[in-house]
Amino acid sequence: MVLFNAAQSTQKTVNVALIGPGGVGSCVLEQLSKLSQFKLISISNSKATYFNPSGIPFHSAKADLSKATPKSIEKELIPQLSQHQPCIFIDNTSSDAVASLYPVALSHGVHVVTPNKVGFSASLSLFNHIRDASAASGAYAYKESTVGAGLPVISTLETLLKTGDKVTKIEGVLSGTMSYLFNTFSKPGTNDDILFSKLVSDARDQGYTEPHPASDLSGSDVARKLAILSRLVPGLENRLEEGVHSVDVESLIPPGLDGDTTPEQFLSGLKHHDAHYESLRKTASDANSVLRYVGVVDTADGTVKCGLETYPASHPLASLSGSDNIFLFHTQRYGARPLIVQGAGAGSDVTAMGVVGDCISIAERV
Amino acid sequence: MVLFNAAQSTQKTVNVALIGPGGVGSCVLEQLSKLSQFKLISISNSKATYFNPSGIPFHSAKADLSKATPKSIEKELIPQLSQHQPCIFIDNTSSDAVASLYPVALSHGVHVVTPNKVGFSASLSLFNHIRDASAASGAYAYKESTVGAGLPVISTLETLLKTGDKVTKIEGVLSGTMSYLFNTFSKPGTNDDILFSKLVSDARDQGYTEPHPASDLSGSDVARKLAILSRLVPGLENRLEEGVHSVDVESLIPPGLDGDTTPEQFLSGLKHHDAHYESLRKTASDANSVLRYVGVVDTADGTVKCGLETYPASHPLASLSGSDNIFLFHTQRYGARPLIVQGAGAGSDVTAMGVVGDCISIAERV
Repeated sequence: MVLFNAAQSTQKTVNVALIGPGGVGSCVLEQLSKLSQFKLISISNSKATYFNPSGIPFHSAKADLSKATPKSIEKELIPQLSQHQPCIFIDNTSSDAVASLYPVALSHGVHVVTPNKVGFSASLSLFNHIRDASAASGAYAYKESTVGAGLPVISTLETLLKTGDKVTKIEGVLSGTMSYLFNTFSKPGTNDDILFSKLVSDARDQGYTEPHPASDLSGSDVARKLAILSRLVPGLENRLEEGVHSVDVESLIPPGLDGDTTPEQFLSGLKHHDAHYESLRKTASDANSVLRYVGVVDTADGTVKCGLETYPASHPLASLSGSDNIFLFHTQRYGARPLIVQGAGAGSDVTAMGVVGDCISIAERV
Repeated sequence: MVLFNAAQSTQKTVNVALIGPGGVGSCVLEQLSKLSQFKLISISNSKATYFNPSGIPFHSAKADLSKATPKSIEKELIPQLSQHQPCIFIDNTSSDAVASLYPVALSHGVHVVTPNKVGFSASLSLFNHIRDASAASGAYAYKESTVGAGLPVISTLETLLKTGDKVTKIEGVLSGTMSYLFNTFSKPGTNDDILFSKLVSDARDQGYTEPHPASDLSGSDVARKLAILSRLVPGLENRLEEGVHSVDVESLIPPGLDGDTTPEQFLSGLKHHDAHYESLRKTASDANSVLRYVGVVDTADGTVKCGLETYPASHPLASLSGSDNIFLFHTQRYGARPLIVQGAGAGSDVTAMGVVGDCISIAERV
């Protein structure tokens, strides 16, 4: 009689190579250090790699980077990793160059786990190379933390689809910065007397935006996440030839400020648009509604778009607070009321949780 | 070079034995019929079993029950299933007797998937037998749909815990019936002029309650789900010796109506308590709050309880609508704002989704 010994199989040692030892990477190392089944065999920064198949202690890994030497990830590291399987290549960078190597890793039977959105939201060609390399070798490419950090977004969407539900629409607030700005600017009921430009400036001072707030207000981060989600939905897989660049994005960067600006120039220029935002807020408020910067994937008409929308005060998007993300999955099975996932969608610790959760899923499957 | 061929391994045929071809069971058959990797080899109702290791077409399975003959699940069926591994025993009943056989199935290397709450919410002794049998043989016992139906509740809790987060509190509305009653009775802002007993009576007429509404108002369904959740949380595993019977439950069955009553006697008696509920509602409403029947697992003091509580109108529990469930995971990592999962927590189709999702997870792991 064959027994399926889960207890033993999940304890099989799984090797790990980590690229990018920054904020998220440090938290990944910390979380993995508590799990005895993982063995770190390589750590890389943007310049060099320390490879040691005997194992690198998680807690000294960043210090051990002092022993790193320049090494081609494509031509040297990945072939070496393929000799130490099962192995997971964890990309904690936001690098295009590293993302372009996922097909190489997967072709070598090396699994990929990443919070880096680039590989799955850039050209359809790269996305297809990743998918095909994974299918051919059987190595996994997991990306839970590319959307909503550690929130169960991609896994929930995949379970809905695998069990045969029809997803009709995904909508939500997919950016922590956009969430914070509009949850603060436009509340159900009465609003604080605050200027939009002042709010953005204060948010920047508190570290709630990128160093240049135009990066957040462009909507491109939301568009990247929408590209990733839409490619999981049957019928929309090939909708976005140019990935994030094919998404219908309403940028909140005002005309005239869309060229090169310093953050200070940008915030100063934004003041000329305070009356515009105040008017939008008042119109919404008069209709007992609020403003939210929302992303939508609509399977009925193939829409993949993001922009500023108005929602009634009783809507789940209106009661959002802080910088929380929220995802509403409208499906045939769930009917009139969507399945909702909500919570912090950014932060090193919760992003690392998504990465480590994916590593555990792979360890349970190999 | 070893390759991990996920595409092939997930397509390995997994045999399925289904117990209980009722509402959920029918939906499970329908959903599984779309997935080529599953083969139905046995179907049982409460009286008899049709076992055919050559395969039973999913669409004719219920009709094929006409060929069923009496068979001991423990002494005949499970030993037969163990000769056809990998095999999943799906229990769609709410039977104590079937739940008591999980350790037997698991000991034979047969995986268990079920929405039946009994096995995981009864005595600690049965729970431990299930856990130990699973650990010894490596066969899985999956139960996502025991709490919140197809909502990602147990999987989310397990990911939080496996990745090293500390869960400080789980709170939520865990019963669709209780959700509907109090979402309707006690809304943020103004309330409809409705008597509690009339609401319960109308809800029963519309099929929103069990045939005898006392089953819902007792809180025991919520208590069972709390028992299941609490046993997953480190430090609370052994808290509930008697499972559901060890949960601190506030029953909404009024004194004097807690004996044998017909539904009509019960609803008639409930009218004498309308003033009590109206008073509770008014007190809450005067404080800009609402009433919700809430379950709580608190790791700080080991509390596992359910009862009627008051929440401010701005709280996520206050904006709940319909008969939705909501689960708030308060954790060290998520800090002040919990990770939230919300949506339909009952219904054959979404319950079956949880069951089939578990079957897919097992198929990916064997």
